[in-house]
Amino acid sequence: MATASYQNVEFVRTGYGKNAVKVLFIRRQGSHHDIIELKADVELTLKSRKDYLTGDNSDIIPTDTIKNTVHAMAKIKGVKTIEQLSLDICHHFLTSFSHVLSAKVSMEEAPWRRLEKNGVGHAHAFILSPEACRFCDVEQNVNGTPVVHSGVKNMKVLKTTQSGFTGFLRDRFTTLQETKDRCFCTSVYARWRYNKTQDVNFDAAWKCVKDTIIEKFAGPYDRGEFSPSVQKTLYESQVLVLARVPEVDEIEIIMPNQHYFTIDMTKMGLVNKDEVLLALDNPSGNITGTVCRKQRARL
Amino acid sequence: MATASYQNVEFVRTGYGKNAVKVLFIRRQGSHHDIIELKADVELTLKSRKDYLTGDNSDIIPTDTIKNTVHAMAKIKGVKTIEQLSLDICHHFLTSFSHVLSAKVSMEEAPWRRLEKNGVGHAHAFILSPEACRFCDVEQNVNGTPVVHSGVKNMKVLKTTQSGFTGFLRDRFTTLQETKDRCFCTSVYARWRYNKTQDVNFDAAWKCVKDTIIEKFAGPYDRGEFSPSVQKTLYESQVLVLARVPEVDEIEIIMPNQHYFTIDMTKMGLVNKDEVLLALDNPSGNITGTVCRKQRARL
Amino acid sequence: MATASYQNVEFVRTGYGKNAVKVLFIRRQGSHHDIIELKADVELTLKSRKDYLTGDNSDIIPTDTIKNTVHAMAKIKGVKTIEQLSLDICHHFLTSFSHVLSAKVSMEEAPWRRLEKNGVGHAHAFILSPEACRFCDVEQNVNGTPVVHSGVKNMKVLKTTQSGFTGFLRDRFTTLQETKDRCFCTSVYARWRYNKTQDVNFDAAWKCVKDTIIEKFAGPYDRGEFSPSVQKTLYESQVLVLARVPEVDEIEIIMPNQHYFTIDMTKMGLVNKDEVLLALDNPSGNITGTVCRKQRARL
Amino acid sequence: MATASYQNVEFVRTGYGKNAVKVLFIRRQGSHHDIIELKADVELTLKSRKDYLTGDNSDIIPTDTIKNTVHAMAKIKGVKTIEQLSLDICHHFLTSFSHVLSAKVSMEEAPWRRLEKNGVGHAHAFILSPEACRFCDVEQNVNGTPVVHSGVKNMKVLKTTQSGFTGFLRDRFTTLQETKDRCFCTSVYARWRYNKTQDVNFDAAWKCVKDTIIEKFAGPYDRGEFSPSVQKTLYESQVLVLARVPEVDEIEIIMPNQHYFTIDMTKMGLVNKDEVLLALDNPSGNITGTVCRKQRARL
Repeated sequence: MATASYQNVEFVRTGYGKNAVKVLFIRRQGSHHDIIELKADVELTLKSRKDYLTGDNSDIIPTDTIKNTVHAMAKIKGVKTIEQLSLDICHHFLTSFSHVLSAKVSMEEAPWRRLEKNGVGHAHAFILSPEACRFCDVEQNVNGTPVVHSGVKNMKVLKTTQSGFTGFLRDRFTTLQETKDRCFCTSVYARWRYNKTQDVNFDAAWKCVKDTIIEKFAGPYDRGEFSPSVQKTLYESQVLVLARVPEVDEIEIIMPNQHYFTIDMTKMGLVNKDEVLLALDNPSGNITGTVCRKQRARL
Repeated sequence: MATASYQNVEFVRTGYGKNAVKVLFIRRQGSHHDIIELKADVELTLKSRKDYLTGDNSDIIPTDTIKNTVHAMAKIKGVKTIEQLSLDICHHFLTSFSHVLSAKVSMEEAPWRRLEKNGVGHAHAFILSPEACRFCDVEQNVNGTPVVHSGVKNMKVLKTTQSGFTGFLRDRFTTLQETKDRCFCTSVYARWRYNKTQDVNFDAAWKCVKDTIIEKFAGPYDRGEFSPSVQKTLYESQVLVLARVPEVDEIEIIMPNQHYFTIDMTKMGLVNKDEVLLALDNPSGNITGTVCRKQRARL
Repeated sequence: MATASYQNVEFVRTGYGKNAVKVLFIRRQGSHHDIIELKADVELTLKSRKDYLTGDNSDIIPTDTIKNTVHAMAKIKGVKTIEQLSLDICHHFLTSFSHVLSAKVSMEEAPWRRLEKNGVGHAHAFILSPEACRFCDVEQNVNGTPVVHSGVKNMKVLKTTQSGFTGFLRDRFTTLQETKDRCFCTSVYARWRYNKTQDVNFDAAWKCVKDTIIEKFAGPYDRGEFSPSVQKTLYESQVLVLARVPEVDEIEIIMPNQHYFTIDMTKMGLVNKDEVLLALDNPSGNITGTVCRKQRARL
Repeated sequence: MATASYQNVEFVRTGYGKNAVKVLFIRRQGSHHDIIELKADVELTLKSRKDYLTGDNSDIIPTDTIKNTVHAMAKIKGVKTIEQLSLDICHHFLTSFSHVLSAKVSMEEAPWRRLEKNGVGHAHAFILSPEACRFCDVEQNVNGTPVVHSGVKNMKVLKTTQSGFTGFLRDRFTTLQETKDRCFCTSVYARWRYNKTQDVNFDAAWKCVKDTIIEKFAGPYDRGEFSPSVQKTLYESQVLVLARVPEVDEIEIIMPNQHYFTIDMTKMGLVNKDEVLLALDNPSGNITGTVCRKQRARL
């Protein structure tokens, strides 16, 4: 059998780090406590590859140290937003070590919601409210500026009408019927790039993108808005996000089409007028698009 | 090797049915739509075991028919609550077939929440809001009355103070320190038995139990309430549930203790005053208790 | 709103412990290493309920100590099988503390398989091979003998023929067609009770039960064995297990029927002769039965 | 609030398709049956974006048709390997429709293993054996040649010795101790690119890559091979893969370091000589690298 030949191969990419580093950060202002819980993945790329090539570990910042650094940065800098902590961690590694070529930090925030009664918030008690998952990633190269993406995922929405799908192409394998009124359910994934990293209100921007996507999906509260395809609804929400959030230059959205169909009960002697539907776990449609500001329109 | 000997064995229990039968029920009142989405498990026990013994299938109501029956009952009876639909399905099987000895139906409801803005609900758009999962199970034997349990699960709550654990037993394997102030996080499971099946407002009862558990966990909104152990908090909420919901006779609660601990940063030269904590995925404590009304106190 | 009334309620059941306590046990015999990896849940019930009633923790063996005890027992006793370690842990708690009324230990074993080449095993390297999950639970009351159950779960098997389903009952909701040849796929769950706890070869017994279930499912290797229903196949394997493993007195099996159906391609102008099938994720049929030795036939 | 402005935005990327299309393919040769079960994601990119822009669906090949096409291709072409079926599907879409710019197909194969006894295979019965998951993806642009990647994932291996980690960099946040003997556990992910798409034995190549990675991880069966770091072991296996499989030009491997550590029992008065270890669920180290043949060394 062939033996290894080191002269004939070269590296395309290397990287290492720690995944799933957890932090619960508590800000205690008297009896009023704020929390942010997060999970971080950190990856570094080093200048040399001697660890891969010869087993020389002298350049390796251990992944255990990377974990400690996340904890220490949370303590030293505090955690205002996951975006800011990610920026702080990238900055730390690139300024503390001259042999770190690039750093990438990805974070997810746990969706804790402060308990409320009649508009009054509890001093220190929270409930997990997973309507939408907030995440971000920050990448920075040595001597470069950081690139910040934020995102929302696992936000599942459903409307029972104001959606249709007609006029599509037919070929020999097409069996789908046209429909002017269907149930539309999707689990939204969106990820956008900021055009700056300072003086951004990341909380407000995240909320605005999330609310805009929901608004375009649902339409006016009394009558909704008709969606002729997932594609159109996806694009409309992207255009509106870019109009509303000047700090965002580009946005990708993925909208799986999680199908529901009306159960045919004629063989059981029943007439089912779109009352009883069946969710199909799979397959699902999957629609995606990425839209950016035109070059001349960038801020 | 030994061969099978049918004379020396007997049945302890048999049952069969369909699991994960899905329904999205839409009630369309003009342009205003209500939805209930559910997943049902149905199990029947038949009088004879000739299907097991001889392969004679003539008594088997196919599991495919059981699935169809769930769909048909949703259409014919409507879906007011998962408890009522479960009652309807049990009743159907026990009255339609003389050879069905017992029926059991378990359901979970998907946590859809109507979209709202400024207190106004959307006509037909919803978001999945998994703060707490509602479930129920109904069991009925031939000639018996149905037994209805409802429950809440996967309701994760956390408080950053007003919890301690001191004065416990110590032996040679004890290394735990006493603490007067700790973070308390749990994912509540509760399941209760109703003492009647008619004229119960299952929606109101479920909401009251859920809110009562949250209330006892959190305490007053300005200052909380001290918990000396999970056991005490669990029991207090059970007693309060039984006081508030007369239709409930018995309640089981399970409260895992999902530990967070303060990260020791002394080796890093940092003083961490309960600001940066670490969630432990496992192991978790697990506390449970079931409490009922005393016989003479039953309604 | 109603206030709590402690006089009118009583306990049905209490218990507490630690879930998901992990252990990797390595037996190092020179350069040859054996491993058992397990995850344990331990639950104790105490004589008094003063922790629930008054917040007096003085009888509580902390769940942290319970975790330490699992680790210590693994060290002191070694880990021959998960059944034996579970027995050891129950014994420890019931003999070390007079106020422990009962102990229950459940364990799952990680399915590590020693790497092998040409029949030679590797000295210390393993691969995770999740063909079947082994678990057990042991319950013991003060002054009582332990009750040991073992089990297999998540063992998924499929056969492409030698299965049918005909002659079943039909009612107004039945739309299923009879079939003399279908695909049969199930994920086996089996759990059995031993009639003694000493001098049992738990490893051999577990393997024999598992192999017997596979044997009855598959039939002779050249032609298989026809299954007229899941019920029949399930029962046949139970009878054979009881014949082959004298230490087992009772066995429960659950066999979900994970449906595959032939895709109808006639609208696409194609004839699909049971070549291309579709797996249905849900719903699934679910067949169960528990069988025991007749009293007079017990060993 | 800002309103949408369509003139200032442009598309970066669009795509749509069907995810999780399932197929069980059975090849029946007399009484001997072979099976391949797979799950496919298919994504197409079309020439026009009028569906996004104006809601004109006339260019859309419905995702339902895409699903049907996967089923039809399985029937018409058969399923020899997931790589070949993916190639067939890409070819179909690019040759059947002039407005499809690119097609991407990703597949995962279910790890069915034929039942065997004494080296004899069963005619038609299988067990799911998830030791390693096989997957592939094929991408093709109009007028371009397809690019085929295959991969293995979720292959978890562990060795109890012959791994260490010493000589690493230390800074103020480093608390890790050096170790000359540790447990090494990882869940391998590998993905490689073929340099041709015809006359490749995809089954043999996949098996060779998988076996080579295991071989480098485990070392000689009697004594193993020392790993000074995950990086070194990862790289060594890549070099060996490229030496052994000439059809592969590039390979990425990700090896998370799933930590186990020896439980300190000194406070319990016990001496634990690396017998009882604890698996840490998170965080995990994460090491990655991509290696390719040097340009001049390509075949």
